[in-house]
Amino acid sequence: MAGPSFKFGQHVLQASCVFFKSRLSIGFVNRKPVVPGHVLVSPLRVVERFGELSSEEVADLFQATQTISGVVEKHFQSSSLTIAIQDGPEAGQTVKHVHVHILPRRVGDFPQNDDVYHALDKHDKQMTDSDERWRSEEEMAEEASVLAKYFNCQVDSS
Amino acid sequence: MAGPSFKFGQHVLQASCVFFKSRLSIGFVNRKPVVPGHVLVSPLRVVERFGELSSEEVADLFQATQTISGVVEKHFQSSSLTIAIQDGPEAGQTVKHVHVHILPRRVGDFPQNDDVYHALDKHDKQMTDSDERWRSEEEMAEEASVLAKYFNCQVDSS
Repeated sequence: MAGPSFKFGQHVLQASCVFFKSRLSIGFVNRKPVVPGHVLVSPLRVVERFGELSSEEVADLFQATQTISGVVEKHFQSSSLTIAIQDGPEAGQTVKHVHVHILPRRVGDFPQNDDVYHALDKHDKQMTDSDERWRSEEEMAEEASVLAKYFNCQVDSS
Repeated sequence: MAGPSFKFGQHVLQASCVFFKSRLSIGFVNRKPVVPGHVLVSPLRVVERFGELSSEEVADLFQATQTISGVVEKHFQSSSLTIAIQDGPEAGQTVKHVHVHILPRRVGDFPQNDDVYHALDKHDKQMTDSDERWRSEEEMAEEASVLAKYFNCQVDSS
């Protein structure tokens, strides 16, 4: 029952969680979203640090990030976005694969605006902590399926 | 004595603070760096939100961000980078011009790793607070001049 999948650093990502695919990047939903609509964008190629990406991959990754940002901001009825890369262990990176966090933001979503980052930092630590309760594959697939409709794209892992 | 300058949202940026210029983007030093080497990258065009950039501007902005990231990580002897956009007021944006924060990170640079974001959030608020003590033009120009050497580029505002 393996089905099509993508690599996300040391993790295997089911294609059902992927709602966007460009030539060099994918957008996918999150096991532990920090806010509703918190999604990730990664280059298809497994590369640990931002500096290792080719110019073409950088362009594709952030054009994908821009496209996805517009959709999640609209779909999750937010008014702003926090966009961040934790590039390297001292910046809080745990998954060894470049990924852009997109977080739709709303007035009062955190008691203090920058509390989002505490949650984000905790989030990445939890990606390697299998004891934490994660969302089910079904829940993630459902969200990905709703988002995929905006892009009119069929996602497979080819 | 106006000299060449660039627009940074509602602010005027002296060319002496700009250490990198590509076709569509600039990299410049910071009045109130959160960590040593905290620099900003912006599209030349004054655009408030990330979603308003053209695909070409997105590619150029992040290729510039990648190039600059490598230099500041090396120059400031750090081992990781926090890269972030506060896109919209609910994400903490105060300067109405898209800008990417690049922060070189080191082991123990903050008591807790994600305290960097508290500092970053405070930083953007201070950009509109003229009572705060900012670095002098001279101090900023000196740092920009050192960084510009890595790029072998002559910066003017044309």
